[in-house]
Amino acid sequence: MKSHLDCIPCFIRHALQAARFVSDDVAIHEQVVREVLRVVAAMDLGNPPPQMGQYIQRTIRRLTGSEDPYRSVKQQFNQYLLDRLDEFREQVRRSDDPLDTAVRLAIAGNVIDFGPYNNVDESLVDNAILKAFSTQLPTSAIQELREAAQQAGDILFLADNAGEIVFDRLLIEQLPKEKITVAVKGGPALNDVLMEDAEMVGLCELVAVIDNGTDAPGTVLELCSDEFRKRFQAADMIISKGQANYETLSDEPADIFFLLMAKCDVVARDIGCKTGDYIVCRSRNKEAKAA
Amino acid sequence: MKSHLDCIPCFIRHALQAARFVSDDVAIHEQVVREVLRVVAAMDLGNPPPQMGQYIQRTIRRLTGSEDPYRSVKQQFNQYLLDRLDEFREQVRRSDDPLDTAVRLAIAGNVIDFGPYNNVDESLVDNAILKAFSTQLPTSAIQELREAAQQAGDILFLADNAGEIVFDRLLIEQLPKEKITVAVKGGPALNDVLMEDAEMVGLCELVAVIDNGTDAPGTVLELCSDEFRKRFQAADMIISKGQANYETLSDEPADIFFLLMAKCDVVARDIGCKTGDYIVCRSRNKEAKAA
Repeated sequence: MKSHLDCIPCFIRHALQAARFVSDDVAIHEQVVREVLRVVAAMDLGNPPPQMGQYIQRTIRRLTGSEDPYRSVKQQFNQYLLDRLDEFREQVRRSDDPLDTAVRLAIAGNVIDFGPYNNVDESLVDNAILKAFSTQLPTSAIQELREAAQQAGDILFLADNAGEIVFDRLLIEQLPKEKITVAVKGGPALNDVLMEDAEMVGLCELVAVIDNGTDAPGTVLELCSDEFRKRFQAADMIISKGQANYETLSDEPADIFFLLMAKCDVVARDIGCKTGDYIVCRSRNKEAKAA
Repeated sequence: MKSHLDCIPCFIRHALQAARFVSDDVAIHEQVVREVLRVVAAMDLGNPPPQMGQYIQRTIRRLTGSEDPYRSVKQQFNQYLLDRLDEFREQVRRSDDPLDTAVRLAIAGNVIDFGPYNNVDESLVDNAILKAFSTQLPTSAIQELREAAQQAGDILFLADNAGEIVFDRLLIEQLPKEKITVAVKGGPALNDVLMEDAEMVGLCELVAVIDNGTDAPGTVLELCSDEFRKRFQAADMIISKGQANYETLSDEPADIFFLLMAKCDVVARDIGCKTGDYIVCRSRNKEAKAA
């Protein structure tokens, strides 16, 4: 998905809010905003929005000297949901369709996103979990996901945010986990999952976990490591979590199942849904890969 | 009032929305946004926000070749409220306190503002009029306005938007109109009132009308004509309509009565009210002029 003119005010808002999240120094806030304005003025709108997110986050890290400004909130949300893991696992186990329930929770967890949202707190997460059980999800898409996972030899699972990863673990427990490799980011990208988060929530004991070699949000293939790209090309099923992965992969010729919450109007318009909707959709380009 | 870092995403949003309002050409939208990004990157935050509004509007006029892109909506809203002038005049006349009622309507009319709002329509205006009668206004402020107008020898009334000017006429009818001079903009500034609008709503037959010599929204004194500045300095009471006039004059050492709807968080914070509030307040700097 390309960047849209409507993304531009949002880049600037994000830069300011992220700078404020990381630092109390107004001079740094101003410096970040001015640098981002200059870069956005010349940006290639052909790039997906998360690529600007990478630039903004790098600028903030450089100016504040903070190596991973979101580390503590990542740990906080991992712990918040780890403390409730047994409760949710029981909810999945007792439900009529455990895979469907696990998918719903995994999408609800996608609300823990410091990109589009500035004030992420536990009540936001709790409300998203409540909504997960009342929202409409296409039964056919869950069925397609189930069948594709059964048939696939090799599944690549692209993780998104910390906290959310606890629900991803529950979802992976409902899938043929011996076929699954989870990919995390290669460097700090907002509150996206790093290897240390995968370890914290016990994912590394369950499945193979690799990193994608970059600190860009989403999955910008040309910025990923050669090793990751090979792994991506080799997979015969990809499960992609979250909005940034959708933004960066929606035009890829690959068979991808996107699980996300649509968190802004530009993405909602691209998908053809409403902002806030819980989305399970299969890549429009799956034929392209088969061809 | 200085510009705030929170104004910056809003400048970019405004530039994009105004470009779309004026032109259907996506290439022009992009050109406007990129030019504004470059200028905002280097802007002096000491300037009030409407000064950037002037730059944005000039850029749009230059790139589209449209001399006054808001002319038709200005005429539309003038006519919409002119058609209901008798009804509102009767409402003012029959009320317990005609000046209070006229002030409320004059603030309601301030909603017709294509700066902070993109979708201004007749239902927005109707709702603002309904709210005018239920909202709290400080009785003491109306009383102060009444007394100051009685005592003043010379009142300068700074108009704001087209449409709104019809309600300003009703307010002026409740004041000692022989002392009043109304100031309009010297050139196209969004949907702000020009001399032709004052003529259209019959204001020129009622009071003296002058222009301020500039196309900047609000009243940026250093951009106004010498003649207007002298008039501003000579007035012993100033009635300032609208948010942009507040933004550009709130730090002036002058005795100013501000009548406005607070339409964004930055201005609401500066005033100490909530966004959407109807405001009647006297300049904090009136002593500065007396001193």
